[in-house]
Amino acid sequence: MEVELKEMLHDLESLKESLPDPSHRASIDKLRLRVEQLTSLEKSGPARRLKVKDMSAEVVDSNPYSRLMALQRMGIVENYERIREFSVAIVGIGGVGSVAAEMLTRCGIGRLLLYDYDKVELANMNRLFFRPEQVNMTKTDAAVQTLSDINPDVVLESYTMNITTVQGFETFVSSLKNKSFRPNKEGSGVDLVLSCVDNYEARMAVNQACNEMNQTWMESGVSEDAVSGHIQLLIPGETACFACAPPLVVASGIDERTLKREGVCAASLPTTMGYNSLKDYFPTMEMKPNPQCSNVACLERQQEYIVAKPARDAALKAKMEAEVLLVPEFALHADNEWSISVVDDSGLDSMDATSSDTLPEGLVRELPSADKSQELQTSEAPLTSNDDLEDLRRQLEALNS
Amino acid sequence: MEVELKEMLHDLESLKESLPDPSHRASIDKLRLRVEQLTSLEKSGPARRLKVKDMSAEVVDSNPYSRLMALQRMGIVENYERIREFSVAIVGIGGVGSVAAEMLTRCGIGRLLLYDYDKVELANMNRLFFRPEQVNMTKTDAAVQTLSDINPDVVLESYTMNITTVQGFETFVSSLKNKSFRPNKEGSGVDLVLSCVDNYEARMAVNQACNEMNQTWMESGVSEDAVSGHIQLLIPGETACFACAPPLVVASGIDERTLKREGVCAASLPTTMGYNSLKDYFPTMEMKPNPQCSNVACLERQQEYIVAKPARDAALKAKMEAEVLLVPEFALHADNEWSISVVDDSGLDSMDATSSDTLPEGLVRELPSADKSQELQTSEAPLTSNDDLEDLRRQLEALNS
Repeated sequence: MEVELKEMLHDLESLKESLPDPSHRASIDKLRLRVEQLTSLEKSGPARRLKVKDMSAEVVDSNPYSRLMALQRMGIVENYERIREFSVAIVGIGGVGSVAAEMLTRCGIGRLLLYDYDKVELANMNRLFFRPEQVNMTKTDAAVQTLSDINPDVVLESYTMNITTVQGFETFVSSLKNKSFRPNKEGSGVDLVLSCVDNYEARMAVNQACNEMNQTWMESGVSEDAVSGHIQLLIPGETACFACAPPLVVASGIDERTLKREGVCAASLPTTMGYNSLKDYFPTMEMKPNPQCSNVACLERQQEYIVAKPARDAALKAKMEAEVLLVPEFALHADNEWSISVVDDSGLDSMDATSSDTLPEGLVRELPSADKSQELQTSEAPLTSNDDLEDLRRQLEALNS
Repeated sequence: MEVELKEMLHDLESLKESLPDPSHRASIDKLRLRVEQLTSLEKSGPARRLKVKDMSAEVVDSNPYSRLMALQRMGIVENYERIREFSVAIVGIGGVGSVAAEMLTRCGIGRLLLYDYDKVELANMNRLFFRPEQVNMTKTDAAVQTLSDINPDVVLESYTMNITTVQGFETFVSSLKNKSFRPNKEGSGVDLVLSCVDNYEARMAVNQACNEMNQTWMESGVSEDAVSGHIQLLIPGETACFACAPPLVVASGIDERTLKREGVCAASLPTTMGYNSLKDYFPTMEMKPNPQCSNVACLERQQEYIVAKPARDAALKAKMEAEVLLVPEFALHADNEWSISVVDDSGLDSMDATSSDTLPEGLVRELPSADKSQELQTSEAPLTSNDDLEDLRRQLEALNS
């Protein structure tokens, strides 16, 4: 509409010049003023939220961070505002990646890097985030539009490309290495990579980049029938990489690309057993890296991890000892602004309890807290925490026999 | 902007009448045409998705239901399009209710009834759904705006009011009873009520209405520190109602309203033990109704449930027997459009497997399916499925001693 208004201003100008009568020329000036007003009205658009310089904990309706900063007051987070220092890369802005991006944006993450080569279609409306009026925009452009409206404080970088091409992979790696956002950061330029893609090839590309850069990442997937999924945390050298453990289900004699169709995720996804929504079953397991992994960078990270182990253990021990001495400084509910504080300033007795186990004054608990029941459950639950892949295999053989 | 454009048309008309020169009058006509074009451009707004008469399963990018109708093809849902007959009432359009509403809208639910008396604030931006430009709108108005843009096929009814006032409760009950959307429906005018409120009083109001109307509903809640929550299914007469089981944590000598502050949920929420995200602990339990419940309508529903038990058991038995005979008609993957079908048309052998356990041709499973592991787990897991409240109490006493 901006263009049309500009053209109209031009027409009015020409008309004015050709009019001999000053009263008519005054009428034209009045019209020009109207068009100029419309132009500024059009430019301002709907009221946008302004950038916020510092996160405030003030409990007022106009503070977009009040309920997040409250997590700090309640002892759930030690220093909420540090979130502004963190960069997260999200690969794949589909059903999983777009919602992860929106959540991080609303939380006030420092910087988001978004990667996708696809366009928004009406067929995507079965998932959250994209809106019908964004159809035909690239997913990255549409995401930047929505996310910057929600929270203009977040630094957004968007990469409209396929990371599995040679050129795309190079751009992907160099964007992750770029440290201009936080020059003094150790390691890569991002704190976490989220893989939210829908195919094996893209997962292997993320795996390769993260193994090379020693970058922690998370892998996710949804089954083709939409009723199950999985999440996996990958720390190079410390846990299994995506190439360490063979997928549960593998394509044999079929090209994945012929298997994958519109609206269907390839059946080769789960490398860990995942959540089954029909059975409400969500097992958890730990996977150590495979010393025979086919990924060379993974083997290098494994070696580094083993070499660094003694120093790491010593540092951890020292840190834990230091924290025991510091405990009195971590008093929960130090002020009483929420009227539900229970900590006695004079004693240390209640310091053992975590915030979620602590009850406000005047409240009585009638069932045991999760702590106790959890101990009961984990002592008997099978398939949680396996020491290594061998252990897992033995358990599976027992199940299959 | 529409008003401004109309005024401009008026000004142009007046100017034209006062101009003697025909060429000048022609210029004015040209300007008028421009303004009229702007008016129609303004009216049309951003491209909106049109209503869809029938849900199609066609796999094309422009079909907003293609990936939902695929659930039917995959045997997850028997008749997806029936979703258009269902009405869901959502009480409380906050962090939980707004996302439930968006999910149901994207799924193409027939009709949504939305209840809230609050306004959107910047402080709500920590949760999904609302956008900063909606600040100061009522939550119901903002929700209708967003949801009707996402899916104009859904019938939206919004009630900007507090259901805990005498007037509000009456309107709430009569809106749930209204059957104009599906006149031949048995029982109330809705299929499900979702309680997504943040206080005890509102939960008791939903409980009262649903007990009176014999209406199935679901209750939800998030703890004040945001790291735990609960979900409860309530079927009047069959399961415990909200008044049947005393809350785990009860306010003693404190008015709930002084306890509850901006951005904080009252600490009296959980009637079932809920999800603890810090410990990733989500226990499940069944609660039978309390024969000493203080809610009179609940006692009536309990009586009806007991009286109807023999007939219900007989009907269930007959239905199961009929389904065994019908099995061949429920062949999964009957056509082969997705290239990943595995069912042999000639045999019944594979009919025992559910769709999520069935692997497409050419794929091999290397770990056991959830079925087997689930059997192992549930046989040993404590605190799942309790026969009645007494059982639960005995278990708790044992834990506490």
